[in-house]
Amino acid sequence: MRVLITLGGTSEKIDDVRSITNHATGQLGTMIAEAFQKSGAEVDVIASSSAHKPKESNHLHVTVIQDTHSLNLALTNLLAVHTYDAVIHSMAVSDFTTQTVYSEEQFLNQFNQWHQAHPTQELDKETFASMLGDQLPKKESKLSSKTDHLILVLQKTPKVIQIIKTMQPQTCLVGFKLLVNVSKEELFQVAEASRKKSHADYVLANDLTSIENNQHTGYLLDATGIIAQAETKQGIAQLIVNQMQNHANQGA
Amino acid sequence: MRVLITLGGTSEKIDDVRSITNHATGQLGTMIAEAFQKSGAEVDVIASSSAHKPKESNHLHVTVIQDTHSLNLALTNLLAVHTYDAVIHSMAVSDFTTQTVYSEEQFLNQFNQWHQAHPTQELDKETFASMLGDQLPKKESKLSSKTDHLILVLQKTPKVIQIIKTMQPQTCLVGFKLLVNVSKEELFQVAEASRKKSHADYVLANDLTSIENNQHTGYLLDATGIIAQAETKQGIAQLIVNQMQNHANQGA
Repeated sequence: MRVLITLGGTSEKIDDVRSITNHATGQLGTMIAEAFQKSGAEVDVIASSSAHKPKESNHLHVTVIQDTHSLNLALTNLLAVHTYDAVIHSMAVSDFTTQTVYSEEQFLNQFNQWHQAHPTQELDKETFASMLGDQLPKKESKLSSKTDHLILVLQKTPKVIQIIKTMQPQTCLVGFKLLVNVSKEELFQVAEASRKKSHADYVLANDLTSIENNQHTGYLLDATGIIAQAETKQGIAQLIVNQMQNHANQGA
Repeated sequence: MRVLITLGGTSEKIDDVRSITNHATGQLGTMIAEAFQKSGAEVDVIASSSAHKPKESNHLHVTVIQDTHSLNLALTNLLAVHTYDAVIHSMAVSDFTTQTVYSEEQFLNQFNQWHQAHPTQELDKETFASMLGDQLPKKESKLSSKTDHLILVLQKTPKVIQIIKTMQPQTCLVGFKLLVNVSKEELFQVAEASRKKSHADYVLANDLTSIENNQHTGYLLDATGIIAQAETKQGIAQLIVNQMQNHANQGA
């Protein structure tokens, strides 16, 4: 059995010394990778540079990435080289990447120019988008702090997870959905929607408010609904390993 | 001799799962703290949660902080309790903290409302500021990604370093200035300006492009100009320890 596990969280650069980071310790993903290695599987890991990582071995290889772009490349390369029985996509991937950074002065100046030129017109999305596209301020290596407000415009990133089933439709894909302080009903509903959208076979649903140290409540869902629950990171890791083994055997 | 060392980089929350992070490994600050401990000094450290930290001992205590606000509290508390011969402020502190986060829709809607109400008026800083203040969208625990663009408005944070000489005018303060790929002339000029502004006795000037693993070019400046240079993190750490000891002896 060969599995690919993504863990940690991506960081999108604002400038050379600042970035927007998705918090993720990588602890759960590391335990999942170690549990798969114990089970005798060949394990490939894509981890963010700041995350906890499993120890490399002849049967466990780690690729380190920084942002959604480098994640995209690493994922595409590995999926092109190896055929995976399962892909466990536990990495917290930025939904947005930095498009433009304005000082308050640049920003107001740009809007007032447009305002004067179009006194009666409404600023719609298309105009706004072209405005941003047209006038990207030259990327500074480090933002000056000589302004009271900075305006960051972030752009939606393409959903990296979509690549997985596109390149390997036969693989068993486990997605992750983390929400913060929502009802179980909402958590399951949102998780199922994201499972469908990413063409994942399973989704591990969890809520930040039910995660503390090793206490970690996770629900494993498939098309039929909730099929299992665990209360610790180890429990979630073992749950996923077992489920992937069953899935592989049923497939065989 | 008792010294206070800040190290690492602050993280300003965007929501419960995302933040704006100032990159700083904490390696240099950790070496400085260890060098001071070796020299027999009592060492207090304020470190960001993600940074490398020195091992705690009876003579070395670490306080962990997250953002500029908690840094401010920790710094104020320690400066109120202890009298420091030297404060080494190597932490990379966010210049900006998240004030408001808009979806593209919220943002355009708000701008167009103002635009309609003031067809001839220019949007000036005061109006913009009150606009932001008036209409803070309710803080969401996790931003929805159902929008093509997010607009983040960041607000300047008060310069934490100013607290140090205000509370302990007699302490010997070492500030740090990191720039990216600038000429030595510009580096020294900007570093000297920041030294003056923060009423620091010394400033350690360095350029990100001259930092790689343990290779780390640093220039120590005081009011008279460059007084020393080092090429490694250990070198910089020893430089600062020696200079603080000389300074203390001259003072005595």
